[in-house]
Amino acid sequence: MEVQKPHLTLPLTKSHISVARLTNYWYIACQSKELRDKPVARTVLGIPLVLFRGADGKASAFLDRCPHRNIPLSQGRIVDGYLECGYHGWQFDGSGACQAVPGLCSIPENNRIKASTYSVVEQDGFVWIFGNPDAEPTTLPYQFPNVNENGYTTWREEFCYESTLLAALENVTDVPHTAFVHRGLFRSEPKRKQITAVIRRQPNGVETEYVDEPRPSGLAARIIAPGAAEVSHFDRFILPSIAQVEYQFGKNYSLLVTQAMTPVSDFHIQNFVVVTFRLGLPGWLMRPIVKLLLSSIIHQDALVLKAQSENIRRFGGEQFMTTDIDLLGSQIWLMLQQAERGELRQPKEFTEKRIHIHV
Amino acid sequence: MEVQKPHLTLPLTKSHISVARLTNYWYIACQSKELRDKPVARTVLGIPLVLFRGADGKASAFLDRCPHRNIPLSQGRIVDGYLECGYHGWQFDGSGACQAVPGLCSIPENNRIKASTYSVVEQDGFVWIFGNPDAEPTTLPYQFPNVNENGYTTWREEFCYESTLLAALENVTDVPHTAFVHRGLFRSEPKRKQITAVIRRQPNGVETEYVDEPRPSGLAARIIAPGAAEVSHFDRFILPSIAQVEYQFGKNYSLLVTQAMTPVSDFHIQNFVVVTFRLGLPGWLMRPIVKLLLSSIIHQDALVLKAQSENIRRFGGEQFMTTDIDLLGSQIWLMLQQAERGELRQPKEFTEKRIHIHV
Amino acid sequence: MEVQKPHLTLPLTKSHISVARLTNYWYIACQSKELRDKPVARTVLGIPLVLFRGADGKASAFLDRCPHRNIPLSQGRIVDGYLECGYHGWQFDGSGACQAVPGLCSIPENNRIKASTYSVVEQDGFVWIFGNPDAEPTTLPYQFPNVNENGYTTWREEFCYESTLLAALENVTDVPHTAFVHRGLFRSEPKRKQITAVIRRQPNGVETEYVDEPRPSGLAARIIAPGAAEVSHFDRFILPSIAQVEYQFGKNYSLLVTQAMTPVSDFHIQNFVVVTFRLGLPGWLMRPIVKLLLSSIIHQDALVLKAQSENIRRFGGEQFMTTDIDLLGSQIWLMLQQAERGELRQPKEFTEKRIHIHV
Repeated sequence: MEVQKPHLTLPLTKSHISVARLTNYWYIACQSKELRDKPVARTVLGIPLVLFRGADGKASAFLDRCPHRNIPLSQGRIVDGYLECGYHGWQFDGSGACQAVPGLCSIPENNRIKASTYSVVEQDGFVWIFGNPDAEPTTLPYQFPNVNENGYTTWREEFCYESTLLAALENVTDVPHTAFVHRGLFRSEPKRKQITAVIRRQPNGVETEYVDEPRPSGLAARIIAPGAAEVSHFDRFILPSIAQVEYQFGKNYSLLVTQAMTPVSDFHIQNFVVVTFRLGLPGWLMRPIVKLLLSSIIHQDALVLKAQSENIRRFGGEQFMTTDIDLLGSQIWLMLQQAERGELRQPKEFTEKRIHIHV
Repeated sequence: MEVQKPHLTLPLTKSHISVARLTNYWYIACQSKELRDKPVARTVLGIPLVLFRGADGKASAFLDRCPHRNIPLSQGRIVDGYLECGYHGWQFDGSGACQAVPGLCSIPENNRIKASTYSVVEQDGFVWIFGNPDAEPTTLPYQFPNVNENGYTTWREEFCYESTLLAALENVTDVPHTAFVHRGLFRSEPKRKQITAVIRRQPNGVETEYVDEPRPSGLAARIIAPGAAEVSHFDRFILPSIAQVEYQFGKNYSLLVTQAMTPVSDFHIQNFVVVTFRLGLPGWLMRPIVKLLLSSIIHQDALVLKAQSENIRRFGGEQFMTTDIDLLGSQIWLMLQQAERGELRQPKEFTEKRIHIHV
Repeated sequence: MEVQKPHLTLPLTKSHISVARLTNYWYIACQSKELRDKPVARTVLGIPLVLFRGADGKASAFLDRCPHRNIPLSQGRIVDGYLECGYHGWQFDGSGACQAVPGLCSIPENNRIKASTYSVVEQDGFVWIFGNPDAEPTTLPYQFPNVNENGYTTWREEFCYESTLLAALENVTDVPHTAFVHRGLFRSEPKRKQITAVIRRQPNGVETEYVDEPRPSGLAARIIAPGAAEVSHFDRFILPSIAQVEYQFGKNYSLLVTQAMTPVSDFHIQNFVVVTFRLGLPGWLMRPIVKLLLSSIIHQDALVLKAQSENIRRFGGEQFMTTDIDLLGSQIWLMLQQAERGELRQPKEFTEKRIHIHV
């Protein structure tokens, strides 16, 4: 077995904040159930949007700005499936075309006046928008595994963070912080054991598998997997903004937490979490327990991410020191940067990297 | 009759906010009745001012900054008609000359120390200041028509907006929005009729006359002019910042609402409104009714203007699409820009432009 | 006796705010008693610091940023005399060296990971830090005179101002404002008398001695020195940020108020005040009286300084007019500027300047 030397890189960055803006990707704007009889305002990648459901039930997303006098369309109303501006009553159909200009004697030819539109796909109970208004998307949004599959229990939650996308993604896929930020819930120091983490680059992301990991000693693990001695544990990043944690307890039981993060702005994340599990006890019993644990964990992380984000902005940029056990952070940043520049490279062969870590 | 085609101009502006700063004009700083025994702080065109009444009763306006250590003079007090700074007790007379420096053994020669002063005229119950401290005004402030004239009822109100000057001026002189922002008060859609609007450039402004306009169908019109079938209706812009709406009901009755807007800053307006009317019923009866209607209308407009202003700033500038029935907005902007550059051109002949509009 | 003409200089500055940043000096970060079992966050010269007491009781100060992921270390905890970061549990000893990276299999060699440290000296009940992290201090912090000396009563207070350092220093050493800002407490106008102020440049500061000053007529003076007819009164500035007022009543009694100001930022001051006195009445009786008077005076000054600071920033810079009786302000500004540039010049001989002033 190769002996690891503590490997410390110099600070990666100085006076720079790790923000990547990936526009040619899908992001969740809201949950499907939120689109009812009123227009809904959401901000994605710093872009203010208005979402509404047209007469045919299809969801649409426009820039939240009337092309006439720039009032937010989200402050208007839906009339017969048209989105009506509250200032002069201009009406837009689901394609963005203006269908009425009250007071104007001749109705303008179709499509002469148009709201700026964003591509929309509704899937898995979410309304996804494509971050680039001018491009025709050639991909579909991410599909959450096992959602509504027989034997699985699934539900959705929404959390709001103050954080960069990178910091929030690293946080979800980072193991060492759990003993401190979630003291008692996951792991605690006296019972550490050395295991191996295998890092694998994947076409659209990167994955860590923890080999021979004992069941974490904390409360959370004891409740969720009371009988399991060993677990299979994977942390994954999937472009552009998904962090996923998977636990498998033996052959039959599993817990998958997928966090699809929408950057509201460079420093705010709307986190849409999908939890899917098959555990020993029935779903109706496990669900409130898992829900409570997840909620506790995410609120603890949100506090740390907010403190980190505020401090980095206070210092005018981050200055990080990275060790070997910061397993995915640097990889995620590299991929985000490459994707932002449209230069995401697929390595010729995906090799594994093995790191020892105390958990 | 010429047939109108719907005329849509491309967005006039991109990433620009329509702000003009006209300094060589008079603006209302406050109402006369506000200047009593304490200095008064007001901001005009972004300039912090202190106003006070000297020993002779004359109003004065200085930059709100003591020339000594730059404390706001408005936080001082008036002593024997002098404005006294609260930090070291320096005293200034109405001309701005410093008349006392406590502690200094020799009194400084007159006028060696001076506060920065602004020209003041008191007229019609308002204290007007000239926006340029270095220029000698060659004009007088606007005179409100029929104020205190026999048979007319007049009163003054003050409102505060979050808006650019241009947006607030356009709003007052715009008819199409009334059916939406003031739904029910003015006009309602089912009863629209096509009429003609005549736009006339004037030496210091621009006017729209609505020809053959039926009495608006809403509540406001029914209360104010119960017997009138037709009205003469004028919307006017008068440089630099006055918007005026005039209704004439037959030969004897009229309602004139003049809104003299003071830009507190680029995005805040202090609106001094003078209402003068002669209506069928006595003034003491009509006044509370008109007051209530006016207040409702202006508060509805203030909400729209705030939403518009915030959205334009959020997007980093406006991007407007204009149709033929946006009658005065473009004209006002053109005149504000010309006046700001000192290049206000008087056309050789003032021609009329006729537009059809559904009201 | 030389006759003074009122001497008015032109405004010293235009569109400039009098801010000097002197890093090669000692500043008080906090009181000694504040460093107990939790890390303490303080900002000095705009630099966020964390302070804590190590296992040996010695105080340390680091940049308030974990070198790993830049969380504020002040949000961590002290474990066995080490400062532990709350995110991943990295532990730092008093020298800044990282002694533990939980999860990492091989402990990093000593000092490979280090927090950024600031020199600390604990003295007179205060924790002083040196403003330059890279320099080795060759001086010691200022020592407060007579602290804990027999026959003297001493105590410490802490006040927070919104002010530039210059404005706060000038305010303490300025006599003319006392008749206005502290009307009734110090002096009142009808009883003014002409005296002589002697200004003396000193190696690290500048001093004014007021010659033949009668005991001030206000309440404060009558309580503190009921029997004294004349007082010796000195106002002093000591680099980089100390303002000192000394009153001597006859041979035996004295009152010394030393205000050691720490610029939290360019516009905020944390003022550590040390009061030391020997007065006719016993300390236990005088202390609450002096305490109340001091607190009243400082709160009145804080209001003026806040108004001044806000106004200067509102106008984009100060524009001061200075007379002969602004005794120390210009001198302080000159020394601060020279010290900031590292060009503090010692004049060949320290001459006195005599000014007449009405007090």
